[in-house]
Amino acid sequence: MLSPDPRGRPAPCRSRSARGQPRVPCLSAPTYQLRSAVPPPRPRFRPPDDSGRHVVGARGLWERSCRTSVAGRFGNGCRLCRLVRRRLAVAPCEPIRKWWHPAPRLRLQAQTSQNGRVLRHVLDARQFTRQWLEEQLFPSTLELQQTPTDRLEKALAGKRLFYLFYEPSTRTRVSFEMAATLLGATVHGIDSHEQYAQDERLEDRIRVLNEYPHDFLLIRYDQEGGASRAASVSGVPVINAGDGPGQHPTQALLDAYTLWRELGRLDGLSIALVGDLSYQRSTNSLAYLLSQFRDLSFYLVSPQLLRMRDEVRDHLTKSGAKIEEVRDLRAVAGDVDVIYVTRAQTTRLEHARRFESDTGKYTVDADVLARLPTHARVLHPLPRGPELPPEFDADPRIACFRQAANGLYVRMALLSLLAAETAQAAV
Amino acid sequence: MLSPDPRGRPAPCRSRSARGQPRVPCLSAPTYQLRSAVPPPRPRFRPPDDSGRHVVGARGLWERSCRTSVAGRFGNGCRLCRLVRRRLAVAPCEPIRKWWHPAPRLRLQAQTSQNGRVLRHVLDARQFTRQWLEEQLFPSTLELQQTPTDRLEKALAGKRLFYLFYEPSTRTRVSFEMAATLLGATVHGIDSHEQYAQDERLEDRIRVLNEYPHDFLLIRYDQEGGASRAASVSGVPVINAGDGPGQHPTQALLDAYTLWRELGRLDGLSIALVGDLSYQRSTNSLAYLLSQFRDLSFYLVSPQLLRMRDEVRDHLTKSGAKIEEVRDLRAVAGDVDVIYVTRAQTTRLEHARRFESDTGKYTVDADVLARLPTHARVLHPLPRGPELPPEFDADPRIACFRQAANGLYVRMALLSLLAAETAQAAV
Amino acid sequence: MLSPDPRGRPAPCRSRSARGQPRVPCLSAPTYQLRSAVPPPRPRFRPPDDSGRHVVGARGLWERSCRTSVAGRFGNGCRLCRLVRRRLAVAPCEPIRKWWHPAPRLRLQAQTSQNGRVLRHVLDARQFTRQWLEEQLFPSTLELQQTPTDRLEKALAGKRLFYLFYEPSTRTRVSFEMAATLLGATVHGIDSHEQYAQDERLEDRIRVLNEYPHDFLLIRYDQEGGASRAASVSGVPVINAGDGPGQHPTQALLDAYTLWRELGRLDGLSIALVGDLSYQRSTNSLAYLLSQFRDLSFYLVSPQLLRMRDEVRDHLTKSGAKIEEVRDLRAVAGDVDVIYVTRAQTTRLEHARRFESDTGKYTVDADVLARLPTHARVLHPLPRGPELPPEFDADPRIACFRQAANGLYVRMALLSLLAAETAQAAV
Repeated sequence: MLSPDPRGRPAPCRSRSARGQPRVPCLSAPTYQLRSAVPPPRPRFRPPDDSGRHVVGARGLWERSCRTSVAGRFGNGCRLCRLVRRRLAVAPCEPIRKWWHPAPRLRLQAQTSQNGRVLRHVLDARQFTRQWLEEQLFPSTLELQQTPTDRLEKALAGKRLFYLFYEPSTRTRVSFEMAATLLGATVHGIDSHEQYAQDERLEDRIRVLNEYPHDFLLIRYDQEGGASRAASVSGVPVINAGDGPGQHPTQALLDAYTLWRELGRLDGLSIALVGDLSYQRSTNSLAYLLSQFRDLSFYLVSPQLLRMRDEVRDHLTKSGAKIEEVRDLRAVAGDVDVIYVTRAQTTRLEHARRFESDTGKYTVDADVLARLPTHARVLHPLPRGPELPPEFDADPRIACFRQAANGLYVRMALLSLLAAETAQAAV
Repeated sequence: MLSPDPRGRPAPCRSRSARGQPRVPCLSAPTYQLRSAVPPPRPRFRPPDDSGRHVVGARGLWERSCRTSVAGRFGNGCRLCRLVRRRLAVAPCEPIRKWWHPAPRLRLQAQTSQNGRVLRHVLDARQFTRQWLEEQLFPSTLELQQTPTDRLEKALAGKRLFYLFYEPSTRTRVSFEMAATLLGATVHGIDSHEQYAQDERLEDRIRVLNEYPHDFLLIRYDQEGGASRAASVSGVPVINAGDGPGQHPTQALLDAYTLWRELGRLDGLSIALVGDLSYQRSTNSLAYLLSQFRDLSFYLVSPQLLRMRDEVRDHLTKSGAKIEEVRDLRAVAGDVDVIYVTRAQTTRLEHARRFESDTGKYTVDADVLARLPTHARVLHPLPRGPELPPEFDADPRIACFRQAANGLYVRMALLSLLAAETAQAAV
Repeated sequence: MLSPDPRGRPAPCRSRSARGQPRVPCLSAPTYQLRSAVPPPRPRFRPPDDSGRHVVGARGLWERSCRTSVAGRFGNGCRLCRLVRRRLAVAPCEPIRKWWHPAPRLRLQAQTSQNGRVLRHVLDARQFTRQWLEEQLFPSTLELQQTPTDRLEKALAGKRLFYLFYEPSTRTRVSFEMAATLLGATVHGIDSHEQYAQDERLEDRIRVLNEYPHDFLLIRYDQEGGASRAASVSGVPVINAGDGPGQHPTQALLDAYTLWRELGRLDGLSIALVGDLSYQRSTNSLAYLLSQFRDLSFYLVSPQLLRMRDEVRDHLTKSGAKIEEVRDLRAVAGDVDVIYVTRAQTTRLEHARRFESDTGKYTVDADVLARLPTHARVLHPLPRGPELPPEFDADPRIACFRQAANGLYVRMALLSLLAAETAQAAV
């Protein structure tokens, strides 16, 4: 994160390259003045400094990011660079350091194909580095989101995305389809009702799809590990759009981006994860992704029988996050920056609650909202059930529709970055 | 309508603008000679004048419409104007009266969005004025229908239509998809089998779709009022593609256009609506739409238990149409200009007939066709069952496939006009 | 075929036109030298000459085909000609014989439409002549397969393909969709889950689709004869994508092309058709298609209760092929050039085997592969079941994924040739 240290000290340059060049933009080295200030459109939150959580906000972040990013982070041919420069209305003053641009890249499962190309897949939220989020995905998404639709560069022209869904999906498919189309790609696919897992081995299907000239395969499978199985036989980048109770990494990306947009930071947050946490790939992936950030506190608000999986909890604990289990959302609503509610898989949740003496409380109601700080946000991956009643939608802290909107742009940025990686690997 | 008065007297100029300009083309003021006569391709019917129903026919209508329409109804930038002028091979002789063009517009449910734009939805057949049908939709449809496919202007280039169907559809979806594609738009959507109403609130889904840059939302819902609910939260024009037993306004538009093309007029028609009239959104919408025309007689041919809804009957009566209920189509076949047959929802219809002493007669058979006047037409919204047996398809009075064909062009015209409205509202 | 006679003698010019010009390229008349040798990418097989089955291999075939084909087979405007010439980097030395090009055309079910155009449908594998396969489909497919995806000519730009599936399909739909899209066409359609045969008569649906400007209708129906019924009312070319237990002609085309690519010839092959042969449209169509080639031996390896239909067997016998029925694949594995395995429709096959004293053997296992000659190939239309276990996929004789890949290019070539036929018929 570009924000100062949550303890209040100025943020040091966190890493240096082999040549001693700062890898992440450094607060002490602003190079350009903004000619036209471009404040982000949404209301920003700046909590008191004494809270121990100094938040710069997206606008401050944006300004400093702009001032420094042009000084050499990106190459002349980089789309993001061009966009940033156009917005700043400045010309780059230094020779572009070509060695810099490719450095902070996706730490994706790499696979060497027969022709020696390195192939990359998006399978697991643990693949993404903090650096990649902050320096590539988030700025790229922000740019795309602030560009009028009809001026979007057709960065994926001539590319073909194929989706293969073994479970129904609407939001994920629709947003990926729109993302790819807006960037010039064509989309085809197979919906869940057209097939059954027992019809044909997943690996066979992926091998056949590899015989056709696809550029991305978007897979939703009904069992954990489906995307990895697909990637193991695919020479085309596989994107995991959910594999049973496993993961949903692109959902985690859009959730993290939403927090960054809404709160201006990801370090030092206090987050309540609410609902059925044992079968929710969204919360799994989000926990994995956020574990890279500092000073996080998680309240896991779920029935005892639907606790978050041990492996995810262990991962969080090892990464230094504080974890606390609670049964009543009201007990912690006053202390959190984020409530992340998941769909009440009603049957399972009801069943679990019946066996517990403390029936718990997993709904965002008037009581919870009254205790929730004004700066906090409520997220929900949608579709929602009674756990987030629509009568509070006018409350600006309910961010679930802005979250869904962000999904489109996060996916556009992800596809663009993947395509750039693939093109680079092919050179 | 542009036809002379059904009583045989020449049609007067029916309305005048505030400045005294004729609003509808006037028979006494032809301005241009057609250099190249462009007769409509289909056989025309001209019944004897003494029938009290003088029908001009689409050709006469077209010629007079052409001669007068250039004299100032449309602006220089109007696509329809350009097409008409190209066809007539004439140049406009008068200065274009800019005040005229935007006047006769859709009387759609208007909604002021957050940014002050006026938004329009297509929800109910009662929205459309007679003037809009005659001056905008029908001529525009006719032009599109007579333009070779590969010369169609890409009036919707860069637009995106999204369909959201909670009930199966083939004809409606396919024709809208083709219409949008032919005009340059891209189409994505969610089919009925991919979702269930209980999965997610319709309003939530519409709100999410509004977060993506769509230009039209085409909704088919399984309950009455679905489209209105969608429109209430949508900043994007919503088009009702059928809401349970409620309405299907674009079906009514294509039905009315078909009557106009086939019979040359909509005033003074005698129409038999046949079948299950209580659950048929097609007949509801058609009745609402036609109620604006003069001297109509409706024969409602249905079992007693499946009568047309009271609200629709009342609307027709108040608008001055004559209504008569009958149980046997043969009794009225000799007196009608139009038989509009609807699908026999067999189970329900059979059930209804079992409880009635008079079992009724709701099928177009040889007996009915023998009594039917030669100028009359049989329409059916399709798909058809035994109520319209295929062995009579060669009879030129069976117009159901021409009716389906018209659907494509009516929908193209509707989308074009909506897009123009939206663009105008945005200025 | 361009290969020498299987008996070892040099191939004669097999046919002459009315003017005495050789119709098929003649081995004794090579005209050009290849400047840049373009060997096909896959490993080739050349069995010993004394086997009585001298196989030239695709490379030799290609070279001779190139040298001779430019000498006048195709016209200046022919896409294939241009591609061949570009690849050979030579200019044609003779005046182009215009009379030649259109001669060897699809022998398709022709139908004279109302406007006098000859319409062609793809309904039955018996429609295709050997000449058309060898001189049009196979070379055209090969060219498309060797052209980089981004350099494909948009031969179908502005065309519209519509698929109408009453049975699920993935491979056929996906490959046709990709084929049409790569050549510039747009694709829409109705999937099997969106409809039921009882909803609407197939003929009605086809008539409505004919009212919209489609260029191809791709039909999969759940009963035999569906495609023919569709063609009987269609003015747009209908392509049979499988009609119940009837035929699947485009599958046969890709199977034949795969054999030609893998083995270099179609004459003189010894082929085992394995599995449930009574309900398999793939094996029906392949048998019909191959029956035009010389000196074929078929081993029909199926349970007694699931024998190949009499009509197909009779057709093969009349065409001169040798037929032998066996119950154990291992008994003939050492003698065949091709094993064509079909999916074990497990329930039916198991049922059939239970009633037979000899339970038979219909699986490609280690035993079968040990006996199979090194030059032989195993094909499977996919999806596969236990009859072709994935553990042998590394064996280069297992060709089923290359076969699936070929499907894309065969369908591209077919659509291109159909479009050219239609354009020619329209002139």
